[in-house]
Amino acid sequence: MIKNSSNIMALSPNTSNKRETVCIFGTGDFGRALGYKMIQSGYPVVFGSRSKQASSLIPKDAEVLSHAEAAQKSAIIIIAIQRQHYNFLTSLSEVLHGKVLVDISNNLKINQYPESNAEYLAQLVPGAKVVKAFNTVSAWALQSGTLDASRQVFVCGDDMEAKQMVMDIVRALGLTPVDQGSLLAAQEIENYPLQLFPMWKFPILLSLSLVTFFFFYCLIRDVIYTYIYENKDFSFFIAISIPNRIWPILALILLSLVYLPGVLAAIIQLYRGTKYRRFPDWLDKWMLCRKQLGLVALAFASLHAVYTLVIPIRSFVRWRSSNQIISQALNNKTEPLNITNAWISDSYLALGILGFFFFVLLGITSLPSVSNSVNWREFRFVQSKLGYLTLILCTAHTIVYGGKWFLSPSSYRWYLPSAYMLALIVPCIVLVVKFVLVFPCLDKPLTRIRQGWERNAPYSE
Amino acid sequence: MIKNSSNIMALSPNTSNKRETVCIFGTGDFGRALGYKMIQSGYPVVFGSRSKQASSLIPKDAEVLSHAEAAQKSAIIIIAIQRQHYNFLTSLSEVLHGKVLVDISNNLKINQYPESNAEYLAQLVPGAKVVKAFNTVSAWALQSGTLDASRQVFVCGDDMEAKQMVMDIVRALGLTPVDQGSLLAAQEIENYPLQLFPMWKFPILLSLSLVTFFFFYCLIRDVIYTYIYENKDFSFFIAISIPNRIWPILALILLSLVYLPGVLAAIIQLYRGTKYRRFPDWLDKWMLCRKQLGLVALAFASLHAVYTLVIPIRSFVRWRSSNQIISQALNNKTEPLNITNAWISDSYLALGILGFFFFVLLGITSLPSVSNSVNWREFRFVQSKLGYLTLILCTAHTIVYGGKWFLSPSSYRWYLPSAYMLALIVPCIVLVVKFVLVFPCLDKPLTRIRQGWERNAPYSE
Amino acid sequence: MIKNSSNIMALSPNTSNKRETVCIFGTGDFGRALGYKMIQSGYPVVFGSRSKQASSLIPKDAEVLSHAEAAQKSAIIIIAIQRQHYNFLTSLSEVLHGKVLVDISNNLKINQYPESNAEYLAQLVPGAKVVKAFNTVSAWALQSGTLDASRQVFVCGDDMEAKQMVMDIVRALGLTPVDQGSLLAAQEIENYPLQLFPMWKFPILLSLSLVTFFFFYCLIRDVIYTYIYENKDFSFFIAISIPNRIWPILALILLSLVYLPGVLAAIIQLYRGTKYRRFPDWLDKWMLCRKQLGLVALAFASLHAVYTLVIPIRSFVRWRSSNQIISQALNNKTEPLNITNAWISDSYLALGILGFFFFVLLGITSLPSVSNSVNWREFRFVQSKLGYLTLILCTAHTIVYGGKWFLSPSSYRWYLPSAYMLALIVPCIVLVVKFVLVFPCLDKPLTRIRQGWERNAPYSE
Repeated sequence: MIKNSSNIMALSPNTSNKRETVCIFGTGDFGRALGYKMIQSGYPVVFGSRSKQASSLIPKDAEVLSHAEAAQKSAIIIIAIQRQHYNFLTSLSEVLHGKVLVDISNNLKINQYPESNAEYLAQLVPGAKVVKAFNTVSAWALQSGTLDASRQVFVCGDDMEAKQMVMDIVRALGLTPVDQGSLLAAQEIENYPLQLFPMWKFPILLSLSLVTFFFFYCLIRDVIYTYIYENKDFSFFIAISIPNRIWPILALILLSLVYLPGVLAAIIQLYRGTKYRRFPDWLDKWMLCRKQLGLVALAFASLHAVYTLVIPIRSFVRWRSSNQIISQALNNKTEPLNITNAWISDSYLALGILGFFFFVLLGITSLPSVSNSVNWREFRFVQSKLGYLTLILCTAHTIVYGGKWFLSPSSYRWYLPSAYMLALIVPCIVLVVKFVLVFPCLDKPLTRIRQGWERNAPYSE
Repeated sequence: MIKNSSNIMALSPNTSNKRETVCIFGTGDFGRALGYKMIQSGYPVVFGSRSKQASSLIPKDAEVLSHAEAAQKSAIIIIAIQRQHYNFLTSLSEVLHGKVLVDISNNLKINQYPESNAEYLAQLVPGAKVVKAFNTVSAWALQSGTLDASRQVFVCGDDMEAKQMVMDIVRALGLTPVDQGSLLAAQEIENYPLQLFPMWKFPILLSLSLVTFFFFYCLIRDVIYTYIYENKDFSFFIAISIPNRIWPILALILLSLVYLPGVLAAIIQLYRGTKYRRFPDWLDKWMLCRKQLGLVALAFASLHAVYTLVIPIRSFVRWRSSNQIISQALNNKTEPLNITNAWISDSYLALGILGFFFFVLLGITSLPSVSNSVNWREFRFVQSKLGYLTLILCTAHTIVYGGKWFLSPSSYRWYLPSAYMLALIVPCIVLVVKFVLVFPCLDKPLTRIRQGWERNAPYSE
Repeated sequence: MIKNSSNIMALSPNTSNKRETVCIFGTGDFGRALGYKMIQSGYPVVFGSRSKQASSLIPKDAEVLSHAEAAQKSAIIIIAIQRQHYNFLTSLSEVLHGKVLVDISNNLKINQYPESNAEYLAQLVPGAKVVKAFNTVSAWALQSGTLDASRQVFVCGDDMEAKQMVMDIVRALGLTPVDQGSLLAAQEIENYPLQLFPMWKFPILLSLSLVTFFFFYCLIRDVIYTYIYENKDFSFFIAISIPNRIWPILALILLSLVYLPGVLAAIIQLYRGTKYRRFPDWLDKWMLCRKQLGLVALAFASLHAVYTLVIPIRSFVRWRSSNQIISQALNNKTEPLNITNAWISDSYLALGILGFFFFVLLGITSLPSVSNSVNWREFRFVQSKLGYLTLILCTAHTIVYGGKWFLSPSSYRWYLPSAYMLALIVPCIVLVVKFVLVFPCLDKPLTRIRQGWERNAPYSE
């Protein structure tokens, strides 16, 4: 909030000891916003423009000159022009020789051109030092001061000194420069603002297809079967009952998929006897999106929790329970307490709550600011130990929920087992394999492999 | 945690290659705390004090001299004195000439003096370079190392070099300097630590007045009306039933107020045919507090969720439902399942849960550390697309909840409609206007305007 | 995500303006990972190794030389060797004279050696400038780019310039250097990655012992007593009923323990008449783990909330309520609504929900990224004002819950009062003392003391 008003207040300082002049080519939105911010941070700013006539939108304290004149005034030139208009820069190549050109452009599509805009610029003006920067920042955010999204400015370039100069400016504007290496990284940096949750794509697609599958599976078993054989219309199960079967199934499967790649990696390392060979590509990718898988699983678990808590409020449930009570009352009898039932009901609820509790804890520790404040030992402890505890509790919750119906034939409609039985397959495999891997005869060699030991080591340090 | 103990351990280093000496005027709490921290970071520290006699509280490794002697030993002098005592510095103006004076003072009230303390200091000692810094840091936090609140140190000053020197010290102490421009920003920086959630004031006042209004509205309809016409004492509705009517109404109204300014801005831009004219002031302010409005709405939505889940535990609800069952049992009849009712009940619950789910998701992505780790496209996607989805789900939840009672005369007591009907007005307007704006004939010109196009453009780049 | 792929893309830059060469002794995991990252950031890297024969694992762009040859090529030498093998460095002491040696080693146990590895290194090579750094970073995280845990690199050393050089490298790698002072801090920095939530130990141990105590207390009262005197088997209470007695008790006690030390500190300061004498050690430690205590309390409160909401779904509860209804129906009578009961039930639920709501708010504001974005006044307002409001609401919730059974003899089984009565002792003490301290006759002197005033001041500034 302090930043908004300082836009107005701290502008036009009569600073005795000025910073170096910065030149900006182009007077579009982003060029102007950057100019404003720089003037405010004490940089004298010169705009290079085709029409030297100053627009009312250009900050008052900035000069507007022709491109060539403006370029001569400064060692750093920010190219706030679209790539299609870069051509005219070739005519300025003499003036631009030795200058630092900052490419801040973005494309409309990922990998729109064969080479990145920054590399293209470097080809056009070979004598200049091109640095890619600022393309991830929004003009609106710069001006309003509400930098809610990232303050990180990715910077790359082949010339160290030029890069350093740009990073100093970035820091002076209150943003955080992140060095991304040579200009080869420009393509990637230009693609970054066009990305839409790339790491989430796989987890979300996977869960969408699983949701679809289990939806029709449950629809057949719970609605269609009942309609055909008992002639009851339970179509309203689509709203709550069926989703509340799907959510826990997905939560459990996705959670176990978080821990499956670790188990597979351990088996591969044990088999190969070394950790120095790359995992297959799919396993690498899988391991990198474990956090996202876990968070999607947590979302489903949360939905399951709320859908479950809402049960006693449902009109259908109230009708069913009052009907049961009335029929008992009319039959003049009260049932004794079934201790086994009480035990099963209470245990699976308790297991579920505790599993959910640790799951939420895992989710909280994966918040960037929380995970930043723990050391590696703590991070691994939470993600691995607490993670397996969560998986065990949730699997136990599902098994106890199944309880005695597990083998009863009535739970197989059209030979289809209850959906939750399908959900138990992956977590049980993960837990069994993990349990085997914990035995010393496998755990010891694995630990040694992970410390760098190799079974058929050709050399050793 | 590592910082606490290093206070003790890493003090008094026998560093071979010292940093430059820093002088501190004043031996009060904050001066001493800053001195400690600086010594620990390797700076030799000299205190300037009226009584040269060293107090036991001053760090051992620091020298205590008279003001003039201390000032001569260092290029940077930190003025840890209250503004009222600045006068005596005029007598030292010769010694202070050319030195960097760091004003760290705070006031007791916002805009207590016509000019900021730092500007006042600059007037008193015209030959010195005044830099404002450190006023947002707490002495207690510096000493205990528990910097839970902000690590940001706002710095401003007219001399670039002096500011750079101070920012280097800030960085060396493990804090984050934020350049706020020239000394004109000092007033603002001095007001900052006195602020108490300035961006939250409007959302909270607005919701307090809405809560008051709807409380009495519901009190009249649900308690007083019932008491007069049915002679029943439902005063205990004040504890849960009435709040649980107010919470969802406020959540829905505030959520729609988050999206109303965007819709208004679009209409204004379409009408003006340009984005280059400032919005009216109230709209600007409204847009800047949208995040806060949304979070307050989320708070009410969460309260609504818990108040709803608690319903079956309420003594009154249990009494009512058991009475219904008993009277049915005594009348010897069971009711058949009302499929329509089951559908309505399940759908509005499902809509509500999903709406709340996306609402929480929105809340999580507005956590600073989460929004920092997404790019602008992702941030806009979440805040706009998911936001409208949330608004649609919550509005639908309310409409379906109303269901068939919507037009029934029994829901108009004293000609007052049910409170939830009032809540639907704003969100419905927002959704309808937004729906209109999505049509290509309006969406296309709007997109062009937002890309910089102007209908009556006098010039074009 | 952008970092992962840049590992591949931005490697081997043809930079025109290279950074200074860095030498790495040792070609183990961490040495190689660091080498990769440095090459990527534009540093030429030379490895010093016993076997000059290049391993396939060493980055292609790095040279591998003998230790002496490698050391001559660079001013900075990173010692990626285990402490046991440091001895051989004495033979290189001539080459290493004046160089910056970066100790990146870790131990297997806390305080494994009498002196830290870095100090040991400094003794072995007295002519070199030893800097401790990088030991908190994980090799795997460096290579995969998934720095989920801390990006902070703690740096310490006696030579300012050497430390500055290392901090510049840290910054260039995209990490955040944190200056920890002189080499005396190395021990602490080496212990840091071995810590496992040190601040959480006391709160967790305390709550574990309290949980154990109250578990047996409730077991005796609720299960064993009932079994002996009423011959009913309520063993299944272990799953939900008893935990749901323990959670709220612990939440309340721990929450009040967050505010007890503040109250004690005020009393001590009032008694001593000064704030300039250290608190006893136990009080200091207690005050530093208040945040952790509060978060553990919040965890218990959350468990209590979910355990409570799940009540109507429990098989036992459904059986009990339907039995009550049936017996009423068989007796042909309906009970009138008990207004007092309705009031008590609704109020304690409302108090509990509101208390929990503010508790969660407190928890959210203690997230590092949230507390970083508020100023000290706001932080104190939330933690103190909202904190006491939470404590008052939760205490009132418990008292109203007790309601009329408070003094009824039936709630004393075997002379043991209900567990919740024990839970009320500490919070009531805290609230009463705090209430007394708010009176002006005590509040005024306390405020003056906290502003630096001393009752028996020997001197004054």
